[in-house]
Amino acid sequence: MYRNFSIVPKIMFGRGAFNQIADILNERRIGEGAYMVFVIDDVFTDAPLEARLPLENGDMLLRVNVEDEPKTKYIDELVEKIRAFNPKKPVGVIGIGGGSAMDIAKAVSLMLNNPGSSADYQGWDLIKNPAVYHMAIPTLAGTGAEISRTAILTGPEKKLGINSDYTLFDQIVLDPELLVGVPKDQWFYTGMDCYIHDVESLQGTFINEFSRAYGEKSLELCREVFLGEHEDKDDKLMMASYFGGMSIAYSQVGACHALSYGLSYVLGIHHGIGCCITFDYLEDIYPEGVAEFRRMMEKHDITLPRNLTKNMSEGDLEKMVTTALGLVPLWENCLGPDWRNIMTRERTLELYKRM
Amino acid sequence: MYRNFSIVPKIMFGRGAFNQIADILNERRIGEGAYMVFVIDDVFTDAPLEARLPLENGDMLLRVNVEDEPKTKYIDELVEKIRAFNPKKPVGVIGIGGGSAMDIAKAVSLMLNNPGSSADYQGWDLIKNPAVYHMAIPTLAGTGAEISRTAILTGPEKKLGINSDYTLFDQIVLDPELLVGVPKDQWFYTGMDCYIHDVESLQGTFINEFSRAYGEKSLELCREVFLGEHEDKDDKLMMASYFGGMSIAYSQVGACHALSYGLSYVLGIHHGIGCCITFDYLEDIYPEGVAEFRRMMEKHDITLPRNLTKNMSEGDLEKMVTTALGLVPLWENCLGPDWRNIMTRERTLELYKRM
Repeated sequence: MYRNFSIVPKIMFGRGAFNQIADILNERRIGEGAYMVFVIDDVFTDAPLEARLPLENGDMLLRVNVEDEPKTKYIDELVEKIRAFNPKKPVGVIGIGGGSAMDIAKAVSLMLNNPGSSADYQGWDLIKNPAVYHMAIPTLAGTGAEISRTAILTGPEKKLGINSDYTLFDQIVLDPELLVGVPKDQWFYTGMDCYIHDVESLQGTFINEFSRAYGEKSLELCREVFLGEHEDKDDKLMMASYFGGMSIAYSQVGACHALSYGLSYVLGIHHGIGCCITFDYLEDIYPEGVAEFRRMMEKHDITLPRNLTKNMSEGDLEKMVTTALGLVPLWENCLGPDWRNIMTRERTLELYKRM
Repeated sequence: MYRNFSIVPKIMFGRGAFNQIADILNERRIGEGAYMVFVIDDVFTDAPLEARLPLENGDMLLRVNVEDEPKTKYIDELVEKIRAFNPKKPVGVIGIGGGSAMDIAKAVSLMLNNPGSSADYQGWDLIKNPAVYHMAIPTLAGTGAEISRTAILTGPEKKLGINSDYTLFDQIVLDPELLVGVPKDQWFYTGMDCYIHDVESLQGTFINEFSRAYGEKSLELCREVFLGEHEDKDDKLMMASYFGGMSIAYSQVGACHALSYGLSYVLGIHHGIGCCITFDYLEDIYPEGVAEFRRMMEKHDITLPRNLTKNMSEGDLEKMVTTALGLVPLWENCLGPDWRNIMTRERTLELYKRM
């Protein structure tokens, strides 16, 4: 059985495309009292980008904090804030920022139309009603959040996405000019999220020609960006991220993403850097990928944090192992149906202890 | 101003995906008397593929003839046939075949919801109402018709597509197994439609990183298919066609497509072979592309027809020139804003006379 893959149906790409957002939104501003909610990373507070947002009378500017990765409790609070701002539902939610801000926009647009807490919908296809119209404007490239059918949330019991076709954005605007000014480390870690997930997808057992075509091109673009010198490297990285996300259609990520989920859940380490920390210990599984990744780190003078698990309790270490090994499809993709005999609890624990 | 590009929102890819069509359609079979129209190339009459179509009681099997490329008059007749079959509108139109059959399915699904003749809508964004739900199942790869926002028709006055976002399919099912059994010449000519349009897109003046990423990967896949040996070459060709179509998002085809339109309009030459005939005379414009194309022809032992314009009247030759030079965006993409001084009527006529 093949998956019937849903794709973000509208895309605008180009330097300065941000300037056309007002036109796109105006088509949605229909009916009395129609208003938009702009969900923007609070790192942009009072920054020029925020001032360029096409806010109209009655629109809501919703600054969000992503120092911690998005939690279900935070989503529920934001939804309440919108309801308090205006009891009428907005006609659109626009997410501006990196993976976390985009995932918040997705989750909020879903929860405006679905009862209960966002924690109730962590899993696959649990969402009942379509979301409010939602658009993404990434200011970081590499997560693939702009194209994915998941909004990754940390809940009271687990870090797990709201996975559904309704989660997908209705529109994305990819403006490479927005990547200018990203701090180097963040640029690198987020880009590596894409690079690593291409390696995991291409080397996985689930791969087919659809996912291979996207994954190979994404990998090639990552190489141009992180090992070459290109004037239009921001354009290339945005496309790498988009293609990397599309590559997941008929494949999956693998060992690195699974292990980094453990780091995030227990230590609160952000996804991009968590993937980098983890990948550096996976040369047994991804020898060529890890070697190339180290060349990229060297070129950009990146130093990864070490000894993160040194003072951790056995209980916390065990929790990380449980989190990582719970991501069954990722391990099946990586190591095949016999994965439990290859990636044992002991081996997983030993990997974490080295980090 | 960037285009806000619409994409076919649902895609299923995989060997044997054809077997899941019934499931996809069942979601649409809602309400009393809901029925589907299966538009299928009559080359499959009584063939095993036709027998595998998931027809239910009340569905219509509409065999279409594509010996001539689709004409507006033919579309209007087919729409009348559907209305005579059942005065109620179908809930879905499924196109099964190559570019012509897919374009017929697109045009019919549009005309079921729009008044007048299909000739009234040849052009850009003239369509007023959305189409009936329509799906494509390509049995040939290379045209990009599965992903394009046009249904190319020959009308009383011109060969020109119905271009609109409504033209786009709602769903495509890409099953590489359906390419088995295509006659070699047709396989080659249709594949070259994709190869040539990648060359035209990548070498054009309109290109950006979005279109380049798709075009480069499509070209690479074409090389693997037509110059290499791969077990999964059918999978690769289907992806090449899809990526080639996506590449057009922010680019355009060029000289070869423009000139081949003239051949089609006046001589009724099919698009794929028309592109091949034309491309072979364009080494001044596309030197590397033409050289590689000739290696592909040699490898597959393809002989192109010659002396097609030998006995043509001056009037018909002039009509071909007018048709080709009327395609302004294609020439602008190919030769830049000054194209009229480069591709003069004389030079165009001289090119046609050599064919």
